[in-house]
Formats: sequence, structure tokens, C-alpha cells
Amino acid sequence: MPYIDELGVKALKAKEELIGITTDKKNSALKLMAENLIKNNETILKANEMDVITARRKGTKESLIDRLVLNMSRIEGMAKGLIEASEFADPIGRVLLEKDMPQGMKLKKISVPMGVIGIIYESRPNVTCDAAGLCFKAGSAVILRGGSDAINSNKAIVGVLRDALAMLGISRDSIQLVEDTSRDTAAEMMKADNYIDLLIPRGGAALIESVVQNATIPVIETGTGNCHLYIDSIFNEKSAIDIAVNAKCSRPGVCNAIETLLVHKDVYKHILPKIEEEFVKWKVQLRACEKSIKILKNAIPATEDDWATEYLDYILAIKVVDSIEEAVEHINKYGTKHSEAIITDLEESKNKFMRNVDAACVYVNTSTRFTDGGEFGLGAEIGISTQKLHARGPMGANEITTYKYIIEGNGQIR
Amino acid sequence: MPYIDELGVKALKAKEELIGITTDKKNSALKLMAENLIKNNETILKANEMDVITARRKGTKESLIDRLVLNMSRIEGMAKGLIEASEFADPIGRVLLEKDMPQGMKLKKISVPMGVIGIIYESRPNVTCDAAGLCFKAGSAVILRGGSDAINSNKAIVGVLRDALAMLGISRDSIQLVEDTSRDTAAEMMKADNYIDLLIPRGGAALIESVVQNATIPVIETGTGNCHLYIDSIFNEKSAIDIAVNAKCSRPGVCNAIETLLVHKDVYKHILPKIEEEFVKWKVQLRACEKSIKILKNAIPATEDDWATEYLDYILAIKVVDSIEEAVEHINKYGTKHSEAIITDLEESKNKFMRNVDAACVYVNTSTRFTDGGEFGLGAEIGISTQKLHARGPMGANEITTYKYIIEGNGQIR
Repeated sequence: MPYIDELGVKALKAKEELIGITTDKKNSALKLMAENLIKNNETILKANEMDVITARRKGTKESLIDRLVLNMSRIEGMAKGLIEASEFADPIGRVLLEKDMPQGMKLKKISVPMGVIGIIYESRPNVTCDAAGLCFKAGSAVILRGGSDAINSNKAIVGVLRDALAMLGISRDSIQLVEDTSRDTAAEMMKADNYIDLLIPRGGAALIESVVQNATIPVIETGTGNCHLYIDSIFNEKSAIDIAVNAKCSRPGVCNAIETLLVHKDVYKHILPKIEEEFVKWKVQLRACEKSIKILKNAIPATEDDWATEYLDYILAIKVVDSIEEAVEHINKYGTKHSEAIITDLEESKNKFMRNVDAACVYVNTSTRFTDGGEFGLGAEIGISTQKLHARGPMGANEITTYKYIIEGNGQIR
Repeated sequence: MPYIDELGVKALKAKEELIGITTDKKNSALKLMAENLIKNNETILKANEMDVITARRKGTKESLIDRLVLNMSRIEGMAKGLIEASEFADPIGRVLLEKDMPQGMKLKKISVPMGVIGIIYESRPNVTCDAAGLCFKAGSAVILRGGSDAINSNKAIVGVLRDALAMLGISRDSIQLVEDTSRDTAAEMMKADNYIDLLIPRGGAALIESVVQNATIPVIETGTGNCHLYIDSIFNEKSAIDIAVNAKCSRPGVCNAIETLLVHKDVYKHILPKIEEEFVKWKVQLRACEKSIKILKNAIPATEDDWATEYLDYILAIKVVDSIEEAVEHINKYGTKHSEAIITDLEESKNKFMRNVDAACVYVNTSTRFTDGGEFGLGAEIGISTQKLHARGPMGANEITTYKYIIEGNGQIR
């Protein structure tokens, strides 16, 4: 039996057990998982140290090491996430619709667990804990397939979470980790439609693309953010500068940071030098179009590739556009349907941008950095969906459930 | 340029135009489409006659001819569907969530069009009209790829609908038909992720399977219904007989008809002969398990394949089970997550069945034949989804929309 089948069979059993679990029991388990993480922090930190040492030996970039490293505050962050998940309303059993049918039956549409959720992600060990907690709260068994770089950290975290489940008599297999992180296991997961109801890839563009091309299971794409900020012809200068800097520099490695700045042709000569002044402080490399490069001091020429690239770094592409229409067209052509922002004082431009930009989150006079379940007040998220099916934008526990119709009658036929 | 690209480019243009269309204009167009169908009924019927003659010459089964044939009453049915679509609330622009964010922005979650929807279906020309009307109401451009058997009927119907759009100055390309129905165009559509946002296959198991295996576009599976009726140990006899007959015989060619009857071991000897008596009148062929075959007069032995087959015909598989648990397990193993029914007077069995059967629609003491958007009071449907992502069960216009978050602020940064 292939390795994924072994996990799959166990997940199906756990899924059946989870169907009947009460809200109280789920919440107790989440709290116990949080306690257990803190109690076993030394084990986790030691395992993480092994991963970090190996990664450094392999010459991994420091920005990636930063994603991999755990410390007490990050473990506390994971525990806090679990506590929060224990506090929000149960996503299962919500009555979405209820009616008496004219034929005499009662019809109810009720939220139910997805079943088994597969998550394929890269090297951030906190994703292991967040995803496990959310899937568990959403009543589904989960199969986690993290990056090989974080394998020791992931094993330690999952071990601790599973121990908490076992203490309450809940199947350990509600949370499973793919311990064999050779490439094949990811490929096997993508085709495991016998076991997995929903597959969520969380990571870079190459991972997402591979899943979309190969998966036979329904997928929700997440996380690739080629986001734009467009500065319109009439706008608040302070907002434009503040937001450009915030959206690019506050955390360039995350998906809701901007990668391209679009500027209206009537204002670029005035505003771009001022923005460049700020970017210099952050050592942002500017890659500019033919027009804008002439008025920037330190830019290099942008190529066609730049419009389509998610740098996740202190690099920004800049392009002058003739109109809001051109800005929208550029965004819809090159963007990844994640987060897009406009700075404008014109009502017409606002409306055009909000209506015509095809993205999960569309911002007016605000930084794209707010795309986050927590910031939206929707609770912890399992990822930011960039597709249109099922869920768009921040996906919390409600977004990883499905529903069924229940029809109770007394002999009705059609 | 491959043929599908031509349609795709036109669909993208039409999609942009449809973003700004008003509710009134959409509804006027739907009414005009309905009028135009009736006015041009002769053209449509003549085109349909050509299809029927060709199909007969090719020796097509009468049950399939029945799906293909149009007559005045079927054209009136299509027109009525369009009028109904003009009457229900606009699925676009619904405010799904609205809140003031603590950071000072206003957040709105609003339903928006999917964009471009592709439908791949088989030989029922009325699907052409129903799907076009629903996608149009839902604000999306549609590319229809019907079966080659119905190509003349489909061309005539789509021509008439597009004329109505043009009369109101709406892009004809809001509704497009794939006129080349060679196999390649279906395969091209499955990979056309540059153009198509959502692909809905509507048809037999082979079509659905091919789309699921090959598509790189998000798909909603529809229509395959290997549905079951389970008769529990304590039950109302009249209901059991009525519902078994109704669920199998009232329209065996549709997806919500049952294919297997499961019966509790304590009651099969008593109830099956009575049910057989009724089935004889309908000339239903019974394929029975080892136990049940002994007490049935005219059954043939069932094989493993029978449990997994959607007959869509006057054929029924019968199996005796030891318990409700075995019934649920059988359904979850062989069913297609469509519609499943139990006949029982036991509260515990009801609850177990409702909770543990994994299907879009779960019925208690009622026929599975009610799975239908109209019967549920949800309006016309584009299909019955048998997957868990995005939409489950009858999918109306609301189910083929997506949403976006709009965040308006005045300079907020994170």
C-alpha cells in the first residue's frame, strides 16, 4: 500500500469519529493542545534547532531561515491561535436555511465538515499548528504535508497536538503529518481523491502551479500575491507616500505586500521622486518603465517579466499608465487576484476600481497589507484564497466547511 | 489561434461589459429572449428535426432521442425558465457582510460575477437555454459546449438568444456556443484557464470523470446520481412501497432516481415481495444480493459492479444489510454524494442517517426525486452539484457567483 493510502485510510476513520464530536469537546481539545505546546516547548525548540542547523549548512537564505525559526514567542503565538480557535463559534451545525416545503417536508441546509483536508505547504512550522487547529475546529481530519526543511519541527508539533487529542479520547489520526517529505508524497496527495475532499496548497507560485496542474482533488489556491498600488491623477499625497512605503516595506516577504506601483501619467513626475526618497531609506530596488526611469535617480529598467513577478523582497516595479482604465487592465492581466489598491480622491475612479478590478480584496486609500483574517475580524485563517470558487480572500474555519440539505417528510413522493 | 481561444477572447470582452450591466437591463433581456424563443419556434423546431433524423439514422436509443426532441411545449418550458430567471432577485451586488473595521475602514463583502463560465453537456437542447439564462442572470459570460447530436438545435436556440441581446445593445458574445463539437474542443475548454473561471460538466459519469481528470480550471461536478433508498427495521409500509416505486419508476433516466434499494435483514422477507409486486407492473429488472434473490420471484444475481452503477433505466439493485451502520457504509462507499433516503420510524436511525450519510441531499421518509432547484423553492438550477466545494446540491444563479471584499479607508496603513 503506498504511504499516502496508509494515512488516507486512517484519516477516513478519524473523519467518521469527528462527525459526532460535540462543540465542547472540540474546544477543550484545542485548549489542551495549546497547553501542551507550551509545556513541551523545549522538545519543539530542540527539534527546530536541528532544522535550522541543517538549513544553514545547506546555505539557505536568511529570509527563509527567518520563516523556519521558532522561539518561545512564536510557540506562544501558535498556542494563542489554538485558544482563539477554541473561542469562536462552531462552524459546524450552522443552519444556513430552514423552510417548510409546500409538499409538506421540512428542509434544512446545514453546515457540515468537509471530511478530510490535505494541506501542502512550505517551511513555516507555525502553519502546521494553525492549519491543524482550524481543520480540527471545522470538524475535518487533516493530512499535513509541510516542507522537508521543517520536518523535525513539524514532527514535534504534531506529536504534541496528537497527544492532547489522545488525552481526551479523540482519534490521534484527526491530525496526521506526512513524515516522508520526498517529492513523491506531494504528488501522491494530489491524486488521493479516494481519501481527501479538499486540498489547500500554501506557498510559492511554483508549488501552487504544480498542485493546480496535477491535482484531481478539488483545490483552493492560496497565497500568491502579485499585488499592485495605483496612484490616480488626483490624490492625497501623504496617503500615497505612507501607503506605498507600508505596502512594500513593512513586510516584503508576505503575500499582501505590493510588487508593482502604477502611477497616472499626469502626476508621476511630481510624486515618484518623493516616493523614491522614502524607498531609498529601505534600500528598495526600483525597476522602472521607460517613462518613469527618466525621473528616478536609482532605478534599473523593468522588463516584461517584472510585471508578472512576485518578488517577496525589497524590489518594486514601477509603471506609468495613461488612465485608470489602463491601470485596471494591467492589474487584471498580471495580478494574481489577491489584493489591489487605489489612491484617489475621484469618486468615479473609486467606483471603477472597486467594480472592475478582479481580485479577492480591493482597497481604496488603504494599504493592501490588511488582507488577513485577523485584521478583517474574521479570526485565524488557513490561507488567502486567490481563486473564485468556494472561498475568496482570507479563509477561516467557516470557509473550510461544506453543507448538506436535510429533508424530513412523512411519505411524500413526487 | 485555436478555436477555443477565439471564443475565449470574445468572452473576456463580454465579461467586462457585463460587469456594469443593471438589474433592469438583465431582466428585460431575459424577457426578450423568452419572447424571441416563442416567436422563432419554427426555426428551432426545424433545426431540431434535423438533429432527430440524424440521431435516428445513427440508431440512437429511444430514451436518448426523448432527451433530444423539442416540441412546442418544451420550447414554452424554456421560455418560462427565462421569464422565471427575470423574476428572481439579482444574485449580483448582494452585501454578504458589512462592517466598520477598528482601523477605521469600511469593509464590505459583495457578491460579484464569476466572469466566464464554461458548460460542457450532452444532448438535451433545453440545457442550452437554461444554462445561458442562468449564467446571464448571474452576470457571467458563458461558453456552451453541447453534444454533437444536438448541434443544429443548439445553434438555433443560441442564435435566437443572441439576437435578443443584440436588440438591447448587449454584447452577443455574452452567450457563445462551441459550434465545432469534435472531441478536441471539449479538451481545449478543460485547459482554457486563461479565459474560463469555472467549468461545469453536466452529463454522464464518463463525461464528468474526463473533465475531473483533465481540467486545469476549477470544476463543479454535477449530475451523477448513484442514489439509494434504505428501508430500516421499523417503518411505515405504505410509505416504503410508495417511495420505492416513485424513486425508481417516476423518471428512471434522471439523476435523482434511485439505483439500489437497501433493506434491513429483519424485514426484507416481509417487504420485498410486496415491493416486487409493484415493480412487476413497471417491468423493473431486479438484481439482487444472495439473501434477497431467494425470496424474489424474478430477480437476477447482482454483481459487485451493480453497486457502483447508475442505470438510469428500469433496473434496480437490491441488497440486504445487517444494520443501519452497514447501510450508511454501503452508501458512503458506492454513492455519488447526490441524494440518499431512509424509510424509518426510529429516531436513532433518522439521526444516524442524517448525520453520517455524506451526500448533498439526505431524505427521511421522502422520495429522492425531490432533489431539484424548483422543488426546493430555490428557482431554476444549472445542475446538481455532487462535490463539496463551492456549492452542493441544486445550483441556482446565486451558486454560480463569487464575492469580493471592498475596503474603503482614508490613508490607513498597517
